[in-house]
Amino acid sequence: MSLKVYVDRLSQPSRALLIFCKLNGIEFEEVPIDLSKGQHRSPEYEEVNPMKQVPAIVHGTFKLFESHAILRYLASAFPGVADHWYPSDLQKRAKVECVLDWHHSNLRRGSVGYIFNTVLAPAFGLPLNPQVAAEGKKILSASLATIDTYWLQKDGKFLLGNSQPSLADLSLVCEIMQLEFLDEKDRDSILSPHKNVLKWIDDVKSATAPHFDEIHTTLFKIKEMFEKQRSAGASS
Amino acid sequence: MSLKVYVDRLSQPSRALLIFCKLNGIEFEEVPIDLSKGQHRSPEYEEVNPMKQVPAIVHGTFKLFESHAILRYLASAFPGVADHWYPSDLQKRAKVECVLDWHHSNLRRGSVGYIFNTVLAPAFGLPLNPQVAAEGKKILSASLATIDTYWLQKDGKFLLGNSQPSLADLSLVCEIMQLEFLDEKDRDSILSPHKNVLKWIDDVKSATAPHFDEIHTTLFKIKEMFEKQRSAGASS
Repeated sequence: MSLKVYVDRLSQPSRALLIFCKLNGIEFEEVPIDLSKGQHRSPEYEEVNPMKQVPAIVHGTFKLFESHAILRYLASAFPGVADHWYPSDLQKRAKVECVLDWHHSNLRRGSVGYIFNTVLAPAFGLPLNPQVAAEGKKILSASLATIDTYWLQKDGKFLLGNSQPSLADLSLVCEIMQLEFLDEKDRDSILSPHKNVLKWIDDVKSATAPHFDEIHTTLFKIKEMFEKQRSAGASS
Repeated sequence: MSLKVYVDRLSQPSRALLIFCKLNGIEFEEVPIDLSKGQHRSPEYEEVNPMKQVPAIVHGTFKLFESHAILRYLASAFPGVADHWYPSDLQKRAKVECVLDWHHSNLRRGSVGYIFNTVLAPAFGLPLNPQVAAEGKKILSASLATIDTYWLQKDGKFLLGNSQPSLADLSLVCEIMQLEFLDEKDRDSILSPHKNVLKWIDDVKSATAPHFDEIHTTLFKIKEMFEKQRSAGASS
């Protein structure tokens, strides 16, 4: 049964999904949907995901959106996926679900609110909103502190004290990678207080190599472009 | 194994959890955590849920928070729970997951933002924030429109065209019940354009009777109190 994966590599949940598929040997066709060109609003894509967001999948004739729902589905439907991603033990699984659910109104909300309204909005023809950015930054910093002192407080390298990563590690670290779009000083001031988070990002990168870096290449190209724009702005 | 359920019946996910347990014959002890009295910030409760939110459960020695994670866990751990709540079929389950995930950044975000900043904030010693309220109302109305025209577009009575409710129906309708706190005219103006939503609320109430009404008694008492306050304000 064919699997089509509709993604924009600048979208953090899209990247998590691509890395997950590659790591687990899931065969798929990547269908690029360029958000900056408005391809998510085309009538063809609306047939795939009426919410006009990425990522989405079509597996045979089965259509699905919402990245966490997709990750859970793939982890369950493809027998080759190692148990640590989405544990079959009910209590271990429930803890992973807890982080995945927590993510929506915390790290993700803060990260999207801040980064979109500090850097990305103009690329989508929208104005920056400093008030939403400020509120986002507050939620983002509080979320990073929670990860640093609570979700990563135990012995293991990964969230919940696990020795191997779960869907939650992948989803959350891909979200944090959006901070690469920020000015370096700003990014450092947000991330550097959280030493456990910094170590964990490296651990997730190592555990998902070489796919993590490969899938993030596009992001680093855009980061470079932003940096050049900033330098040009500073010297003009 | 004992199950303790920590809830405030004025919290929408708390009510969804109580209704779910009662409907499915899950034995539990209800531990009231009064948010308006700050009981969620006590050191004792922080031991149960370090995020200081309701609901949370302790099942034997296993602690869990985040209402969707709890509902999934109970649906999986208690063999008496009917399959329609959280289908074992992977694709049917994935569709329920999709609605549960969508909920966080849409209906829930809109509803909490609007209702807290229109009615509830003073009860928690906080000021109303009209700008957050306005943004919340926009998201709330767009979310109700999506439920009305997309999630409920098929033949069945419930979300996704199902003939019986899932965890998503329960979670989302309990969220919408928060609108009872609003002034009647305001509530009607928000809900009345969405005829499928109105019918679906009634269908979920019927499918979960008599527990739905019983668990919502506290909410209706507070609604009455708010109405008296509004009348007193209008006539003074």
